[in-house]
Amino acid sequence: MSTQMAVEIAEQPEAIARTLDALWPLREELASLGQKARAVIFYARGSSDNAAIYGRYLVEVHAGRLAALGAPSVATHYGADIDLQDVVAIVVSQSGETEEIVRTAEWARGHGARIVSVTNSAESELARTADLALVTRAGPEKAVPATKTYTTQLAAMAILGAALGPPDAAFDDALRRVPEAATAMLGAADAAAEVAGRLKEVSRLVVSGRGFVLSTAIELALKLEETCYITTMGLSHADLQHGPIAVLDAATPALLVAAGSGPMLEGMRELAASVAARGSTPIAIGGDAGFAKACAASLPGPDLPEALAPLALIVPGQLLVEVLARQRGLDPDQPRTLRKVTQTTG
Amino acid sequence: MSTQMAVEIAEQPEAIARTLDALWPLREELASLGQKARAVIFYARGSSDNAAIYGRYLVEVHAGRLAALGAPSVATHYGADIDLQDVVAIVVSQSGETEEIVRTAEWARGHGARIVSVTNSAESELARTADLALVTRAGPEKAVPATKTYTTQLAAMAILGAALGPPDAAFDDALRRVPEAATAMLGAADAAAEVAGRLKEVSRLVVSGRGFVLSTAIELALKLEETCYITTMGLSHADLQHGPIAVLDAATPALLVAAGSGPMLEGMRELAASVAARGSTPIAIGGDAGFAKACAASLPGPDLPEALAPLALIVPGQLLVEVLARQRGLDPDQPRTLRKVTQTTG
Repeated sequence: MSTQMAVEIAEQPEAIARTLDALWPLREELASLGQKARAVIFYARGSSDNAAIYGRYLVEVHAGRLAALGAPSVATHYGADIDLQDVVAIVVSQSGETEEIVRTAEWARGHGARIVSVTNSAESELARTADLALVTRAGPEKAVPATKTYTTQLAAMAILGAALGPPDAAFDDALRRVPEAATAMLGAADAAAEVAGRLKEVSRLVVSGRGFVLSTAIELALKLEETCYITTMGLSHADLQHGPIAVLDAATPALLVAAGSGPMLEGMRELAASVAARGSTPIAIGGDAGFAKACAASLPGPDLPEALAPLALIVPGQLLVEVLARQRGLDPDQPRTLRKVTQTTG
Repeated sequence: MSTQMAVEIAEQPEAIARTLDALWPLREELASLGQKARAVIFYARGSSDNAAIYGRYLVEVHAGRLAALGAPSVATHYGADIDLQDVVAIVVSQSGETEEIVRTAEWARGHGARIVSVTNSAESELARTADLALVTRAGPEKAVPATKTYTTQLAAMAILGAALGPPDAAFDDALRRVPEAATAMLGAADAAAEVAGRLKEVSRLVVSGRGFVLSTAIELALKLEETCYITTMGLSHADLQHGPIAVLDAATPALLVAAGSGPMLEGMRELAASVAARGSTPIAIGGDAGFAKACAASLPGPDLPEALAPLALIVPGQLLVEVLARQRGLDPDQPRTLRKVTQTTG
């Protein structure tokens, strides 16, 4: 019997397609809202924050607009008095009800920002109060770990990036191919089960990527923590090199995430060699044949340009997490400590 | 015989005092440079990036100006074409020669930003080419792990925050008290050795804080990784609650970092109880008596307002790392994999 998480992983190609169809017509409105923005600031937590990491790269690199991740506590705990006139705040929450993010959105609006919400519910507080609501079409997500709500958030980010950037037919074409590329990734289930076999007894892990797919690495790390209870360091290749690489040893494998092309790939190949030289086990997710060869095991990545790879590259990672949880005797649908609408208190 | 790291930890009160004296007169120039800035963006890596985390909170909360952390790869690998007119870029690197940050600074200048550098060398590339150079006065740092170069960077951040914010005599007074507060922290050496005894055999850790002292938690996590080779998750209290708290168990203690006052303290106390309820061991650094009591062991924190606590609160953490490395049979002065000027390749 399939877990709910496995079912929802498999639903992603359709969920992404529905979301792209629904949000495509909002591009003009997004563009006009962002036209004079001096900065685009993302506010989110958890998986939504990992979608924001992707959104940030896309808005800066693809659309050429200043973008950054905001810290909700600056609003909720410090009530900072910052002029946000001409700022577009992108608030991301699957439920649209996470109190911390709702309050942050109110604070941003009160300080002059225009609000774009990304939620999976049109009826939610964040969707109802935003200047523009990007409502993802994941459908109801029953497993506690976010899968299709995450990838549909990525789809919303792609629409945002396209809207704020210059016309780019190649990008649009590739975006239309994402559901198909995500479907192809579902074929990695057997390979994921094999890789999981290597990680069954592991208690610590490193997950690394860089640039656009840093989001994928951080999201995969979060899933491994919350669903498999593995102490996982998720960090960029560049940060890893700045000292933390010292933790790697035979008991600490490294999952290395890469797009199939782009300026990060060569560095990731070198990182794989460097991981192996430290007696650790490099495991590839995505990349090209040379990258897979530099690693001890590998999962395939999608045939998409780097700027859109995150929308499908997380799928083999999700498959790995789902099967690994089961191999470790855990229920991926109901991990300990997590609830569906996460409230940050205190 | 003392390690070089221990010697340099003890030199910090004087290094901070020298740095404050040297940079105080630059406040007016900083203020005029930042006056019309639409955003303040920090670019850094490693410990310098952790100083930037603090700088970001200070500029947003204390000075009320939009601030964020930039991603160097947006410049170095993607060469994004972003209009940075009216942006102040704060580039932080102790050597002032880290190629990635030098290139990022060139990119930012080329796109219209004004550059403020924070380096420990007046002769460095970054100091020579900046619109305004904040040169820290740490003196030569011989141990590989950054200690006094980090806290003097924090001192530079405090000067920046003060310069960009409204006049605030209480803040200025507290800033003058920082060297004395850091000196008091040196008395925590015996307590640090005791706490280290609890961590001698540990292979994984969580370090958490929130708000201003998130910087302290992340810097402590980095030190534990690079100097003690412990797989460490350093993350905000809020992010920890969003799932990753599931990794905590009897073999995974949690170091919890808090200022002695401020809006985060109550939540950190609750987090300590929540950590203990999961069978993990909460260890306090800083906070108040109630926070220490909620934890299984504790190290003291400085008598400073929350907004300046990071300048001295890292000291007990540094003492812990130094003694823990020795207890684990390692040389804190020469950890594996680290060099002093870290270049990020690839």
